[in-house]
Amino acid sequence: MPLKPNLRIPGPTPVPPDILEAMARPMVNHRGKPFAEIVGRVGERLKDFFLTKEDVLVLTASGTGGLEAAVVNTLSPGDKVLSVSIGAFGDRLASIAETYGVEVTMLQYEWGQAARPEDVRNALEHDSDVKAVMVTHNETSTGVTNPLEEIAKVVREFDKLLIVDAISSLGAVPLAMDEWGLDCVITGSQKGWMVPPGLAFASLSERGWKAYEESTMPRFYFDLGKARDSQAKGQTPWTPAVSIFFALDVALEKMEKEGLESILARHSRVGQTVRDGVRALGLELFCQDERYASNTVTAIKSPDGVDVGELRTLLEDEYEVVVAGGQAKLSGKIFRIGHLGLADDEDIQDALDSLAAALPKLGFAPSAAR
Amino acid sequence: MPLKPNLRIPGPTPVPPDILEAMARPMVNHRGKPFAEIVGRVGERLKDFFLTKEDVLVLTASGTGGLEAAVVNTLSPGDKVLSVSIGAFGDRLASIAETYGVEVTMLQYEWGQAARPEDVRNALEHDSDVKAVMVTHNETSTGVTNPLEEIAKVVREFDKLLIVDAISSLGAVPLAMDEWGLDCVITGSQKGWMVPPGLAFASLSERGWKAYEESTMPRFYFDLGKARDSQAKGQTPWTPAVSIFFALDVALEKMEKEGLESILARHSRVGQTVRDGVRALGLELFCQDERYASNTVTAIKSPDGVDVGELRTLLEDEYEVVVAGGQAKLSGKIFRIGHLGLADDEDIQDALDSLAAALPKLGFAPSAAR
Repeated sequence: MPLKPNLRIPGPTPVPPDILEAMARPMVNHRGKPFAEIVGRVGERLKDFFLTKEDVLVLTASGTGGLEAAVVNTLSPGDKVLSVSIGAFGDRLASIAETYGVEVTMLQYEWGQAARPEDVRNALEHDSDVKAVMVTHNETSTGVTNPLEEIAKVVREFDKLLIVDAISSLGAVPLAMDEWGLDCVITGSQKGWMVPPGLAFASLSERGWKAYEESTMPRFYFDLGKARDSQAKGQTPWTPAVSIFFALDVALEKMEKEGLESILARHSRVGQTVRDGVRALGLELFCQDERYASNTVTAIKSPDGVDVGELRTLLEDEYEVVVAGGQAKLSGKIFRIGHLGLADDEDIQDALDSLAAALPKLGFAPSAAR
Repeated sequence: MPLKPNLRIPGPTPVPPDILEAMARPMVNHRGKPFAEIVGRVGERLKDFFLTKEDVLVLTASGTGGLEAAVVNTLSPGDKVLSVSIGAFGDRLASIAETYGVEVTMLQYEWGQAARPEDVRNALEHDSDVKAVMVTHNETSTGVTNPLEEIAKVVREFDKLLIVDAISSLGAVPLAMDEWGLDCVITGSQKGWMVPPGLAFASLSERGWKAYEESTMPRFYFDLGKARDSQAKGQTPWTPAVSIFFALDVALEKMEKEGLESILARHSRVGQTVRDGVRALGLELFCQDERYASNTVTAIKSPDGVDVGELRTLLEDEYEVVVAGGQAKLSGKIFRIGHLGLADDEDIQDALDSLAAALPKLGFAPSAAR
């Protein structure tokens, strides 16, 4: 049975009971030995999911704080950056960079599409001054996964820095930081990790750390060098969200038991189930190209004649299934089903069954279009 | 009976069982109505403790993130600021400002002393270019509370902006934001609020918001204007630490039941109990002037011939009492007892009894100096 309410938004995801229980543990001294052991263990285990030998640093912040850390630790005011955006979160990453005085060239796509590596190559060929490429791995606002490995290959050819927003991808879809040559990878606790929001994870490659040394950007709270120095002692530079560390520690143990390969296979399977199920209901996917369909979040076009707001309310009130609406210009035009972290076949089937039962009540006959 | 271990560090404080329970609640949609009600309620109740009619904004970050928010939302690079420091956290606030290009003039005191309002007046008389004064209300590293009301009076005479680190004071010792004319007040969830770490609270006065409008500092994650706009809709700009909001909601209800006056009286009482008890053991307080002795944390000089590290280990291992060591240049020279948030007579008595029992084992005869 799925946990109810069946929280099918793309984060926060439902959190398994044993991980929630860890959230309720009594406080400890965050500078003491027992907590140092957790900091150490969590840091080591995260490496196994980032597939990196580099430190993975844990910041007390949400994903957006992690993205800010990426910008202020690797870039300097005036640096030129190619920002690849396929949706709201790609735009956000560009905004953060612009806020900090980075000169951003946008490579923008129609929402619903994936970025094309050849466009990145073209852009880099025409602008040799670019220092870094920024890209969203999985665009939560549109349900599209960028071909990151291929994009990384191009960026490596040009020897640019590659900054990756992996917030809604890491731990759920394939990402190999070291093998692909990613220089800065960011994710957040409430996505693929089955943990409540409040922690962001960040890792820098050797090139990333070199960029850190050269960066003249002002930074204090999000200073990854300070985080690295503290983590080596089993600490964080500032008082961390201790409870979420407890939860993360339990979550990573569970994830290690399931195994990365199994986790990736499960996300691939439930992603396919959602897409097949949605299409079988006569609904249209927002991402038209199956190759780039996200295995962590699916965006579905608003069914003809159905108000998405009403559909979401009905699903929540009568079926205890919570789905997300559209963001920014997609508000009212799509709805989104999250299937990352805690997402198994029965959770997805429950969401699809509820959708099938709800749609006719709003005047949309699911079978009609089959 | 005190909760064991009796966590007597100056934050995180022990968290009462019903607040811990709230930490384990299942996730919800952070953009949904039930969570909006919590955001609204928490925001309103925080005002009653800040004693302000202004918005109190909740950031997912630790206190240091809140201090960074203070700097980047009210100042601009090149601004001149008078930074009043009586310890490690005063120095930290100055460092943050310097990091962001603020021209900082330090008004520094020997650690263990409080700032003198007349020195602030002198400094402001000699430097009319100063835009803002920054001050730590309660210096956690030394156990000293600054005479904030008097300092604020001086700052108001000169019509400068007053930025206050109230992290280990607010909700525990008197602070009246509006009445005293404080322009930016910051605190953190793990201090006077009996909540796990991970949230910082920030409030700006009307002058503070005017400074915000004029500020040219880069800011994104910590942008208080974005936080204010979102909070008006019962949201946060970025995914918040949902669980800690749940806990804060329960904590503020408890605090409202106890009542601000009672809470302040309790802190005043346990502060006195700690100081009297410590002196009765023949130990010396680090803060020599009783008028400025902190009612949230007491720093005690290392007893003659006793290694503070050994004392802390003994207290923790044999008595389940966790006290803090000294920070920075006070490392090894003092130890600190926290008595804020969840701190009642029996918690304090247990800590004092344990100290009395532990000291002789390390060769210090508590009665000798009586």
